[in-house]
Amino acid sequence: MNFRIILRSLGVLLICEAIAMLPSMVVSGVYHDGVMAAFAYTLLIIILSGILLINVKPERRSIYARDGFAIVGFGWILISFFGALPFYLSGAIPSIIDSFFEAISGFTTTGASILNEIESLPEGLLFWRSFTHWIGGMGVLVLTLAILPSIGEGAFQIMKAESPGPSPGKLVPKLGKTAQILYGIYLAITFVQIVLLVAAGMPLFDSCIHTFGTVGTGGFSSKNISVGAYNNIYAEVIITIFMLISGANFSLYYQMMKGNVKALLKDEEFRFYITVVFTSILFITVNLYKYSLYSLGEALRHSSFQVASIITTTGYSTVDFDKWPVFSKMILFFLMFIGGCAGSTGGGIKNIRILLLIKAVKAELMQIIHPRAIYHVRFGGKTVDGKVLSGIKSFFFAYFFIFVTAVFLVSIDGFDMITTLSSVAATLSNIGPGFAMVGPMGNFSQMSVLSKLVLSLTMLIGRLEIYPMLLLTVPSFWRKVNI
Amino acid sequence: MNFRIILRSLGVLLICEAIAMLPSMVVSGVYHDGVMAAFAYTLLIIILSGILLINVKPERRSIYARDGFAIVGFGWILISFFGALPFYLSGAIPSIIDSFFEAISGFTTTGASILNEIESLPEGLLFWRSFTHWIGGMGVLVLTLAILPSIGEGAFQIMKAESPGPSPGKLVPKLGKTAQILYGIYLAITFVQIVLLVAAGMPLFDSCIHTFGTVGTGGFSSKNISVGAYNNIYAEVIITIFMLISGANFSLYYQMMKGNVKALLKDEEFRFYITVVFTSILFITVNLYKYSLYSLGEALRHSSFQVASIITTTGYSTVDFDKWPVFSKMILFFLMFIGGCAGSTGGGIKNIRILLLIKAVKAELMQIIHPRAIYHVRFGGKTVDGKVLSGIKSFFFAYFFIFVTAVFLVSIDGFDMITTLSSVAATLSNIGPGFAMVGPMGNFSQMSVLSKLVLSLTMLIGRLEIYPMLLLTVPSFWRKVNI
Repeated sequence: MNFRIILRSLGVLLICEAIAMLPSMVVSGVYHDGVMAAFAYTLLIIILSGILLINVKPERRSIYARDGFAIVGFGWILISFFGALPFYLSGAIPSIIDSFFEAISGFTTTGASILNEIESLPEGLLFWRSFTHWIGGMGVLVLTLAILPSIGEGAFQIMKAESPGPSPGKLVPKLGKTAQILYGIYLAITFVQIVLLVAAGMPLFDSCIHTFGTVGTGGFSSKNISVGAYNNIYAEVIITIFMLISGANFSLYYQMMKGNVKALLKDEEFRFYITVVFTSILFITVNLYKYSLYSLGEALRHSSFQVASIITTTGYSTVDFDKWPVFSKMILFFLMFIGGCAGSTGGGIKNIRILLLIKAVKAELMQIIHPRAIYHVRFGGKTVDGKVLSGIKSFFFAYFFIFVTAVFLVSIDGFDMITTLSSVAATLSNIGPGFAMVGPMGNFSQMSVLSKLVLSLTMLIGRLEIYPMLLLTVPSFWRKVNI
Repeated sequence: MNFRIILRSLGVLLICEAIAMLPSMVVSGVYHDGVMAAFAYTLLIIILSGILLINVKPERRSIYARDGFAIVGFGWILISFFGALPFYLSGAIPSIIDSFFEAISGFTTTGASILNEIESLPEGLLFWRSFTHWIGGMGVLVLTLAILPSIGEGAFQIMKAESPGPSPGKLVPKLGKTAQILYGIYLAITFVQIVLLVAAGMPLFDSCIHTFGTVGTGGFSSKNISVGAYNNIYAEVIITIFMLISGANFSLYYQMMKGNVKALLKDEEFRFYITVVFTSILFITVNLYKYSLYSLGEALRHSSFQVASIITTTGYSTVDFDKWPVFSKMILFFLMFIGGCAGSTGGGIKNIRILLLIKAVKAELMQIIHPRAIYHVRFGGKTVDGKVLSGIKSFFFAYFFIFVTAVFLVSIDGFDMITTLSSVAATLSNIGPGFAMVGPMGNFSQMSVLSKLVLSLTMLIGRLEIYPMLLLTVPSFWRKVNI
């Protein structure tokens, strides 16, 4: 383990966080919301810590997979801890545990909140809270890469640990360049959505907040009852479409930019994703209409928004879907586990994994029918490597293993089973709201300190796709190794 | 596909069922319970159908994996259909769907009931209901094998499809002999438990009923509130121990008989199973005691019984565990998925699979830490074949795939989420009771016809470990193949 380079990298990360915090301080100043001092103190602490760490001189510049995982694991904990300081120092969130929960929920683009009342929060904090979604969306470390490609070859190891989905594609040979391209796309999407939301009649500040929450698939709102507060159908349609865009693989957009306009429709994962989305919308619309909860148009409107919100793991809501019939709720519950596409800002198990697992079971069945033939799982016209497939299958089990463990710990609180199960599902898949007490009209404030810490960890484990965090618990991960 | 030999095998199976029904008719006669005629008519129908099928002359005697799977799949449906006739013809269960549900619940050793009132059931039917557990426990087809080893080499294909666990071990080279040995052990355990229960003060009839339910890990009782009705601690301890015995791999008992007395403690799966059992008992005891529900002794008593009942997928209860605190309920909920050991009469995913999956994830983590090393999963001192491991991982996903599909269909009924989720879990893992409406004091009577059919299928899919039933849905399974 190259501890020195890990510390140094964490230092770079903190400086990036300080820079990322500046816009929120400016917002605080513009609105005279009284929390500018909290931002200033936080910045001072972050910059000092960052400089201290950056001055750790590494003995060798080599960085390996293990170091990458360690940087990512600790990096997210560290930035969440420092990112929580404005909430805590301003007094807006009196508990440090709650502040940490809110920050980690932001950075991991979960959007689960411990706040009962959001609308009275100072503008600077509201902005920072949502901005953490935007930063977290593409991965704080990919950001670091885009700005500082100097870390060199080891960067791919970090990106491997960081970016969602089974195998991060290098769009172009140079990794720093890839990160820059992805961020370019990300910025462009962000800009377009803000403009559209303003055009739809949403105030500029609110448009920024909800755009950060959308493109990062986070889900923090500036309203207590989320997007539903505006009752603005144009804004809802825009957010629905942009949630779905943000839940798809960003590299597809790059390919489309390069002239391969059919890239989106040709992509097997995207086709699967969009099929799941439309099927779910259809079923829920029919179910809601049959239960006479809404008119057919309203049913379609609300089902589209909620399905897009849950599958992309954003977590915005326009209605209290906890009051929907159980059939609709069950669809949403299972969409929580599926999540977005690989290479998107969404969380969850990811569509590509579910698709490949279905194909693997099919291959297994064919193998039983024709024992002498050999069946391979194919994806995008190519045979999927056995090792990759095996890894995905293990991942599926690991996901449930973490899920079960977290459920046990949270169940000590003694809330009902649905609150317990869905609070873990909603954090592990980085969604935000679940059902019952933690439903779209509820929040996580009543949870115990233990549960809040467990769910903070769950958000992190989900965001980093299990392994980086699990690795930190393996003793031999820390042992010295001969290279 | 060798359709003729499939039909012929099904005929043999029906004759076996007819023989298995005789004791229940005798019980009916002894108690003058008024349903002897229903048994007689049923027997007539079964025997006539059986003779008709047996007279199908196969063109060739060869039998392949596919044929084996087809025999098993249709065999279970057929015997459940005919096994339902005494309930229906006697008028005790007026609906044919309900009768089928009860019979399939019996044969699959699930123990889920659509009956609100059990105690008024005629003795013959009570006996038959529980006897189906006993028959189903070791697999109707293994029974067939034990009696008719003449089917020959193809028999192993049937046993492969039939017997629980990833890979059925042949105890002795001759398969018919293996089945006979297993049945010998099964009979001995049954006999000992009946004697012990009678000694503990339970009436002989009730002792038989509860022994069939225990050794088959079924769970049908003759009392509305299950084993709790006796409030007999000796009986509870006996049933607890025999449930745990029936949830372990029966081949271990054969090895012990052969002088390898340490076989049980040396077996990795058994050690895992017993660790899960004791850990769960410990946690639940503490949880129940902390909530002041019982004295420490009572808490231990009830937690032991319920844990043994759920993990072995029996489904007996001594208290209404649906009223327990959520932490205890969550443990029971997840035990539902784990289930018994391979080669036991229990259902669920099976301990060996869970253990191997945990090892696979560990190996995955080690691989990340040391990318150049090669890690194998080892079990019982041997490296687990990659193909077997891959199959187990696919199985885990397939299990959840079936679970999710069934939950969607059942959720159309609109019962609460916990009823919906746990009704599917309790049937797929062949347990019986779940939580809420289908809890230990509830039943499945209020479910719609669709849900009853779905859950009947779920019981069958779970009992046959997914693949045999899934195969029947693959078109190419039915296509002619050149051999």
